[in-house]
Amino acid sequence: MAHIPAHSDPARQGAPTTSSRYELLTLGDELLLGLTANAHLTWIGAQLGRRGVQLQRNVTVTDEADAIAAQFRESWARADVVITTGGLGPTCDDRTREVLAAVLGQKLVFDPRTEEAIRARFAKFQRVPTANNLKQAYRFERGEVLPNANGTAPGLWVEQEGKLLIMLPGPPNELQPMFTEQVIPRLAARGKLSDQEAYIQIRSIGIGESALETMFECTFSRSPGLGIAFCAHQGQVDCRISSPDGRYGMEKLRAIASECAALLGDNLLCFGHDSIAQVVADQLKQQGRTLAVAEASTGGMLANAFADLCGACKFFQGGIVSTSNEAKMLMLECPECLLKQHGAVSPECAVAMASGVAEKLGADYGLAITGFSGPCTGGGENPLGSIYIGLHSPHGDWAKQLTYPGPRAAVKQRAINDAIDWLRREVLKETHRIAAPQVN
Amino acid sequence: MAHIPAHSDPARQGAPTTSSRYELLTLGDELLLGLTANAHLTWIGAQLGRRGVQLQRNVTVTDEADAIAAQFRESWARADVVITTGGLGPTCDDRTREVLAAVLGQKLVFDPRTEEAIRARFAKFQRVPTANNLKQAYRFERGEVLPNANGTAPGLWVEQEGKLLIMLPGPPNELQPMFTEQVIPRLAARGKLSDQEAYIQIRSIGIGESALETMFECTFSRSPGLGIAFCAHQGQVDCRISSPDGRYGMEKLRAIASECAALLGDNLLCFGHDSIAQVVADQLKQQGRTLAVAEASTGGMLANAFADLCGACKFFQGGIVSTSNEAKMLMLECPECLLKQHGAVSPECAVAMASGVAEKLGADYGLAITGFSGPCTGGGENPLGSIYIGLHSPHGDWAKQLTYPGPRAAVKQRAINDAIDWLRREVLKETHRIAAPQVN
Repeated sequence: MAHIPAHSDPARQGAPTTSSRYELLTLGDELLLGLTANAHLTWIGAQLGRRGVQLQRNVTVTDEADAIAAQFRESWARADVVITTGGLGPTCDDRTREVLAAVLGQKLVFDPRTEEAIRARFAKFQRVPTANNLKQAYRFERGEVLPNANGTAPGLWVEQEGKLLIMLPGPPNELQPMFTEQVIPRLAARGKLSDQEAYIQIRSIGIGESALETMFECTFSRSPGLGIAFCAHQGQVDCRISSPDGRYGMEKLRAIASECAALLGDNLLCFGHDSIAQVVADQLKQQGRTLAVAEASTGGMLANAFADLCGACKFFQGGIVSTSNEAKMLMLECPECLLKQHGAVSPECAVAMASGVAEKLGADYGLAITGFSGPCTGGGENPLGSIYIGLHSPHGDWAKQLTYPGPRAAVKQRAINDAIDWLRREVLKETHRIAAPQVN
Repeated sequence: MAHIPAHSDPARQGAPTTSSRYELLTLGDELLLGLTANAHLTWIGAQLGRRGVQLQRNVTVTDEADAIAAQFRESWARADVVITTGGLGPTCDDRTREVLAAVLGQKLVFDPRTEEAIRARFAKFQRVPTANNLKQAYRFERGEVLPNANGTAPGLWVEQEGKLLIMLPGPPNELQPMFTEQVIPRLAARGKLSDQEAYIQIRSIGIGESALETMFECTFSRSPGLGIAFCAHQGQVDCRISSPDGRYGMEKLRAIASECAALLGDNLLCFGHDSIAQVVADQLKQQGRTLAVAEASTGGMLANAFADLCGACKFFQGGIVSTSNEAKMLMLECPECLLKQHGAVSPECAVAMASGVAEKLGADYGLAITGFSGPCTGGGENPLGSIYIGLHSPHGDWAKQLTYPGPRAAVKQRAINDAIDWLRREVLKETHRIAAPQVN
């Protein structure tokens, strides 16, 4: 039985604690030209969302001063809190500071303490700042500086007309600690967000989005006004329930989530935000079991799904990326005759890889993926997107074929999710076995 | 000497061929709540950018009908082409189709051919559509359907008031082929974008953004009106040059790019969009050399950088993910005494991993990364973010220490880029050796 995390006081309302309207302006031609992903929307949106704030709007505009000014005027008129990212760098296309100061009728003033911080940072890397680096030492005359522990551009904090402007630097490793360590506490102190989680997420796998909606329909219909959102991604569907008008407390939301969980059975992945790899990792650690993986077409991403977890070394023995037949023979001891007869993309090879890597690394479970995932391989009997997954467990060895449409990256991610889900269900059987009373 | 790709006719102007204003509306609460990344901005922005169109704005709003309607009205008034993504699904929070039809004063009509396609798609997976699936069979009365080869929600194409509305489904594997195969040709046919690349990108590594701007300043100052944009990411800096007002042709842009390349020397990665792994892959294939990798803290991402390339099996022998000391001993034959004396995060271990994996897989080059990359490891002599990279080449074996600040994901990507760059420079020496006349 999965556990619904208790979010503090059960009497606490699940509704957002703030009616503040937040808008996010992500600045930079590189975003509109697709040179860098707009990761700030995803990250800041999640940070706010968990604290009961739904970001109302995200706008990305070009680096042109006029476009920035026009958009900022609109957002400032509409929102209570405007967060900007990017455009604080040292180069000539970094204009955010100057443009926003002009719109708010503020002067920029040179901040000697920021200059000092910039010089200190350059000195740490045995370098001297150029003149354009020192552009970053200017702040709003009626505003504060948010020090940047990981870069030269400080953040800027401005309160004016009862509203908030928060300007953050573009690099994620500078923005993220600045946001969690400085911005969140300041916003919470002003009652602009909650310090608690505000919704419950039910994460499922193996059921389509519309089938899931139909499955939950009856349960949800008994609670009018419930906030419901579905989100499908790579074989998983998340359902998030909340109480937008605050009529249901966390205890009631948890009861509804439990009902959904009962309907889902083994298709319930977890409550909350854990990845499927994290769910399996917790199961394995609980049972004191270990895992090793072997992969071809997924190129290392299956191993990374586990290696990326905190405490991976407690259950994850390692992985082998065997793109060539030679590697399969040398590292996994796949018999050459088997590769010759059935090919590398076959159930026989998938099983040989899974059992080979488990034995080689002394792991209880072995998980393998082999297949064509395009765009420049495949053909013959195995269509593009054809994948075999192999599973070695203390109870046996099996292979399974999967076929996906779609582009390479999607096929890889989908295959990884489905392979890990197969492992999850197998490990879950072991949990049931342990939990079930022995009948003789 | 790197090669600047010739973009067709040298007399062709490098300027955008269209003055059409494009706006992109990405719809879905899941984007604002950070549950899924706004990958459509990145992908569509890049597709348009390469064809001479700079997306003017991207707006993400909530799933509320009022918010969608208000934003669409604004964008429709301002832009010539409005592209929307998402909100065409079968569930109750998918409202885009209805809302936009109302704003444009159009009726939705049931499209029997789309119903047929939906039923056929469900039949293919041995399933029957539910009533909410058939919601997707409605189209604008004065509009066209863009068939969806990979999902149930068709795209919608509407021409009205001399403007274009293009509605695309949310899943990338449905949107992307629909965009390249149907939308791009239709836009090109209407003169709304070019079918040619419109700028030259100079990709560098090893030089900071402001130092690069200073380095190129003199060259750029001789060409007034040149479009210049810098974009720094994980140790690389891209500089994109174009001619926004069309005064410089492609030949002139190529000459300017060549000057920049001469200034960069070995710090030039490439012209265009190739990843650093692709650049090294091309070098290795040209020399008929092979590569194998071993990694710990990067968890499989180093292997994936190479395995993901088209034709990887021609040079990439495979990889080993050795998160545990046991794996290092079992698979890489790292001596136990060495691991005990120096630890797994040491130059000695990095060299042993690089030479071990090269020998094990019979590769000419071996590249290894070992290190702590946080958040739950590290300490002692090796601070968080401390990484050793090991390189085995036909000319010797070396290790190098790198220290990065920042969060885990950034440290991993940075370490991978720097490790591959070290390999690139080593392989480049070999190229210089082959090219240089022997002096006795």
